[in-house]
Formats: sequence, structure tokens, C-alpha cells
Amino acid sequence: MYKINENYCKLPGSYLFSTIAKKVSAFSAANPDKKLIRLGIGDVTLPLPPSVIKALHSAVDEMGAAETFKGYAPDQGYEFLRSAIAKNDYKNRGVDISIDEIFISDGAKSDSGNIGDIFDADNRIAVCDPVYPVYVDANAMSGRTGEYDKALEKWSNVTYMPCTAENGFVPELPKERADIIYLCYPNNPTGATATKEQLQAWVDFARRNGSIIIYDAAYEAYITEENIPHSIYECEGAKGCAIEIRSFSKNAGFTGTRLGFTVVPKALVCGGVSLNSLWARRQGTKFNGAPYIVQKAGEAVYSAEGQAETKAMVAYYMNNAKVIREGLAAAGFTVFGGVNAPYIWLKTPDGMTSWEFFDYLLEKVNVVGTPGSGFGPSGEGYFRLTAFGSLENSLEALKRIKSL
Amino acid sequence: MYKINENYCKLPGSYLFSTIAKKVSAFSAANPDKKLIRLGIGDVTLPLPPSVIKALHSAVDEMGAAETFKGYAPDQGYEFLRSAIAKNDYKNRGVDISIDEIFISDGAKSDSGNIGDIFDADNRIAVCDPVYPVYVDANAMSGRTGEYDKALEKWSNVTYMPCTAENGFVPELPKERADIIYLCYPNNPTGATATKEQLQAWVDFARRNGSIIIYDAAYEAYITEENIPHSIYECEGAKGCAIEIRSFSKNAGFTGTRLGFTVVPKALVCGGVSLNSLWARRQGTKFNGAPYIVQKAGEAVYSAEGQAETKAMVAYYMNNAKVIREGLAAAGFTVFGGVNAPYIWLKTPDGMTSWEFFDYLLEKVNVVGTPGSGFGPSGEGYFRLTAFGSLENSLEALKRIKSL
Repeated sequence: MYKINENYCKLPGSYLFSTIAKKVSAFSAANPDKKLIRLGIGDVTLPLPPSVIKALHSAVDEMGAAETFKGYAPDQGYEFLRSAIAKNDYKNRGVDISIDEIFISDGAKSDSGNIGDIFDADNRIAVCDPVYPVYVDANAMSGRTGEYDKALEKWSNVTYMPCTAENGFVPELPKERADIIYLCYPNNPTGATATKEQLQAWVDFARRNGSIIIYDAAYEAYITEENIPHSIYECEGAKGCAIEIRSFSKNAGFTGTRLGFTVVPKALVCGGVSLNSLWARRQGTKFNGAPYIVQKAGEAVYSAEGQAETKAMVAYYMNNAKVIREGLAAAGFTVFGGVNAPYIWLKTPDGMTSWEFFDYLLEKVNVVGTPGSGFGPSGEGYFRLTAFGSLENSLEALKRIKSL
Repeated sequence: MYKINENYCKLPGSYLFSTIAKKVSAFSAANPDKKLIRLGIGDVTLPLPPSVIKALHSAVDEMGAAETFKGYAPDQGYEFLRSAIAKNDYKNRGVDISIDEIFISDGAKSDSGNIGDIFDADNRIAVCDPVYPVYVDANAMSGRTGEYDKALEKWSNVTYMPCTAENGFVPELPKERADIIYLCYPNNPTGATATKEQLQAWVDFARRNGSIIIYDAAYEAYITEENIPHSIYECEGAKGCAIEIRSFSKNAGFTGTRLGFTVVPKALVCGGVSLNSLWARRQGTKFNGAPYIVQKAGEAVYSAEGQAETKAMVAYYMNNAKVIREGLAAAGFTVFGGVNAPYIWLKTPDGMTSWEFFDYLLEKVNVVGTPGSGFGPSGEGYFRLTAFGSLENSLEALKRIKSL
């Protein structure tokens, strides 16, 4: 008799965003006349930039002619894209990453979820609290997280690192065992960033303790301030202790087009085994490359036009962030984020819980956000708004919230 | 100190197709004047059909305009595509599969590799021998296969089911424990098929023994004969014991475009747990949907034009198969496959080993195929040629082989 993976049965029932979706659709059904403004899910709204559209059309034409048709892509991605990444994302920032350290994928979520494959079940993970749910859930599926305590909303074998206003949403170095450390800066959901000195302290910690850092830099394009590293490899020694995951979703609007990449430096060696080889083997066995047309679209992001267009797109969202952040602050809210990230993280007013504030905003002013507690216990008393709406909607949402 | 997944270190070193690629490039470097004909890797060569190209262009335009732009796709795939699949691949063949039993993915290789996630490490897998390497390698990575014996070329905890000319390449029902059974018909690499009666015997075996069948039907479009099931769900009771994996790669030329799907029937329940829910959770956590534009391309395959065009494409390849198969038979070779599959599986002549025949063909007539032993020990003494080349190349390869 075959057996299922019982670890799945330990996962807490409902996924945050499906709970929100249910509440929102129940409200809409009961109030069909109300115009909702959705600043909940972190999905982009602007169309793909013209240079990307042009590259897609051109690649589609190639696929339609025998002489230029492309079959199976190289597992690790086309060299034209890996070269553009090595040059633009790394060399231009003074970081030397070779193209065989870059693995193109169908997105940062897949890589975040799958990277655990190359690690033993006996590793203790450490995550920020609050946190993007995929890191923990994927590890839970592999049996790495112990038992789930419903009351505490925590797993027994996970090191949680509280991120609150008090520590500027950059956690203290863990005192417990932490073999695999997940860090995401600029951060989802808090919108916080780590300075180069703060990140260097993490790299030093990992090297001292034999930990590995999984660094999610999906939001690096939103960094506006100096001294904020765009890549963990800007820190001394990071190539020996960190894997970096990147995305085209938020910088170029690829949420529905699917493209990302993961850097596994050759210097990452554990007991004589190269992690780069392990990941190459994992991807070579369980993945068959990102579509050619999408990789050509990714290449276009690095063209002069693509860079100008995507920078304008990011600037548009960051203006929304500024409008929301400054408007809420002026209205007396305590707000964080929104300077180097498309997320505004605010304290719920009057001691409301995150879900109370969610219901309050939904019912009173028909604005949808995300309750901070959905990202982890330390998110309780916080609330996330995204800057990915239109300027009009951002302004209207602000006006409505202020009216409360 | 973090630990790697040591199971990866048990994997035998070189992947079949990379060994071939190295041999071929060494030969080409030494013999730059020789024109090679490649009938090795199972990659298609005809361009995407016009209706698919049209759908891609149209979807790209949608992604370039704010009103029609698409962000994150539903994890499980767009309903328009799942509906087309349910109707065309199942309902039209008398099989009732609902759209929430269909999971769109980036291809059958990913699904074949990832499906093991929802099963316990303590399951014994059974595979055909010879076999597509992904099934075994992915299970080896999860620690399910025991130890690898280099001399035998076998894993200690895998039930190998020899497929040879003697049993028509459809194996006997296993006498050993077999919890998860991988079957692929039409078969890669042997080109064989199972009749409905033969497949029904497998379904009955699985139901009697509490086994689950992972049925890879990536080549179903190549079936030309009656009484060959296109889906395992044509067999009585299969919904209670089988998962089916399908692909757009070979029927519509999507090897470089990436699209596939997996059917997990709701009737699949193990200890009260729905496997459909487990797979939904797995995909919802570690996958973020196939690209919208690619799903629209997939939908176009089911249009009247798409069906006509893809059928013509398959017919073109199957004519190559016929030419190669009949030509080799006339030349005195013992040949199998090529009737319901794009693969011709031939006995190596004069007692040569598979690799000896590989070298012989490469050196004497500059034709590249795949040594049968690369797919497993029972493939020794066999050789695979694919029908995915051009007619001209297929004819030329045949002429060269006959000249030996």
C-alpha cells in the first residue's frame, strides 16, 4: 500500500490569501454597489513595457519558422540571458558572478520552494517573523519544521526571528541553532531593508556558524537609498555562505509571465560537495528550462529601452508608496516601509488586531489590505498595503482611510 | 552546520544525454567536414503551428495593454485551458474528468519529477527497464531508492520490470512490493504501447495491492491503432489508483515553450486524505502557474485549426517513423516501435553492445542515435532512433545505415 507524505497533513488549513479572497467575495456579494479598492495581494497592474512586448513578438515569430524554431532550452537557461544578468545585476555593482553560477527559472516562488530539495531533512531553518509563507510551508512539506502549534501559530523546529518596529524589522542574530537562514530584503511584508553593515553581520554569523543564507532579493529594484545592498554578494564572504534568489515579477511586471533566477556560487561547498552541482542536478532532473520566448523577454529588460521603461514602472509604484505612506503618516498613522519597497506596513490604530482592522477597512471604506498577523505572530497589530495599484486608486484609498 | 541532501551523492555521475553530447562534439571537432544527422534526443524540429503563433501574438498584445494585462495566473491554471482539456482529451473519449482535477504546469518533466513530493519516503517504486531516467533520479533524490549498484546499474530499493522483445515491451505484473508504479505508454524509449486489456490488468493490480500508478501519456497523440488507450482513465477503476501526466511538447511542438498538465482525480484518497488536495497544496506553494501567453497557446491547440495543424505535424513525424522502421526492417534489422510512437527501437546487429553500435554509427556513417543501455540494463543490445528529424534527414540516415 502506498503512503502519502504525512507532513502535508500538519500544514495549517487555510492559506492567508484564500481566506482574504473568501471574505472579500462574501462582502462583495452582500454589497454589490460598493466599489472595492484592492491593495492586498502583491500583484503588479501595469502592462509589460514596450521593449518586452517587442521582444516577445519577435521571439514568437522565431518559434513560427523552421530556421529559427527553438526546442528544449538549456536546463540552466540561455547564455544570452545569463550573460545579461551577470553584467547588469552583478558586474555593474562590482560583484563578480559567472554565468555558470546563474540558474534561470520560472520564478522566485518555484526556486524558494524547491531550493530545500538539495538540503538534508535534518536542518533547522530560521525565518523572520512576519515572513512570506512559502519558505516555511515548503520546509514543512519536507518534514523539516517539526510539529505545528495552532495556539502559538509556530512550528516546533523553526527558529523564529521577530521583526518589529523596535528592531527596525531587521532581526537580532539567532541564539538558537540556525542551519538554513531565510532573509528577504527589501522585505515582504514589512517593506524594511537591511543596510550593508546589517547584512554583513548576517554573512559573518553564517560563516562563523556554518549556516547557509537563502537570500530573497525579489524587490531589489525598489531600493532608492544609498548603502542598501542590492545583492547579498556585495558583502564580504557571502559567496561562501549564501544563495540568492531573484525575480522579474516586480521590477518588470512578469508576475503572469514567469521568470526568475537563482545564484548558487561555486564557492559554496559543503563537505567537499559543490552546491552549484547539486542545484544543477536538481534542475536538470525536475525542470526543463524557462520558455525561450520568456527568456528573450527577460533579455529585453536589460536593453537601454527596457531599463528606462522598467525604471519608470518602478518609479510609478514608488510614487504610490510615497503618497500612501506620507498621507497615512499625516493622518496620524504609524507607518513603515514604502521607501525602498512597494509595501507599506502600518500599525493598526486603537489597539485593533490585524484582522479587526482588515474587517473595519473592508466594511467601512471598502479597502482591501493584508492583515499582518497572516504573515506570522509578530505581524499582529500590523497591516500591509501595497503600492501596486493605480495612482488614482491609491489616492482614493488614502482619502477613504483618512475619512475614518 | 547545515547539511546537504546526501541522496544526491548516490546518483551515478553522468547523465546519458550529456555523455552523448560529449562524444558527438569530440567527433565533430576531429572531423569538421562530416555532416552529422542527429536522431538522438527526443526534441521536435518543426516550428509551432500557425494557430499557436497567432494565439501567442494575440496574448502578447493583451499583456502590453493595461485593460487586458494579466498578473499572477491561478496556481492550477486558467479555466479556459482546463475546460478545453477536459472536453477534448477526456470527454470526447468518453472519460469524465472535471476541471478541478486538472493541474496546468510548465511541462511533464517537472510534474514527473515533482509528483514524488506528495508521497512518503517509505514507498517502493517500480519502473520499467529501460525507462525515462527522470522517474528514478527524482525518487533517488528523495531517498526512496536505496543504494546504487554500479555493476548492476540498479538501485537496491527499486522494482525493475524488464521490457524486452519477449514480452512485447509491456512488463509482467510485479511479484515484489510495488507501491508507486511508473508506466509510460506509448513508451519512451521502446516505442511500444499497451492495449486496453494490458493496461486494465495494471489498473486491477494496483487496486488489488493498494498501489498507485503514475501514468505518463506524453506521447498519446502518436497512437494510430485502435484498442490503444490514450488515457489510463479509459480503464475501469483507474480514477481510484492513477495519476496521469500529459504534455504539449510532442503533440504540438512545445518542447521550448513549456506546457503540460497532470490529472489527479478526486477519487484518489489515501487514508482519508485527498491526493488532489495534496497536489493542489504542493503546486500552490512551490509553483506560480504557467505563463498566461503559453496557456493561451495551449488553448489554440484545441481549436479546429490547431487540431488540424498539430495532427499534420504528428503525421509528418510518423511518416518519418514509418520510413525508418520499414527501411531498417527491409535492410535486415529487427525493429520495434514507430507505429504508435515517434521512437524506433532496434536490435543492435551482430551482438554489438548499445554503445559499440553508437560509436559504429557515429564513426562510419555519422548518424547519432541513443544507446538503449542508457535507459537501463534491459536496454542493452538495443538502440533508439527518433522520428523528430526532417524527412530528408530521416531518408539520408536510412540510406547511410543501409550502406554499412
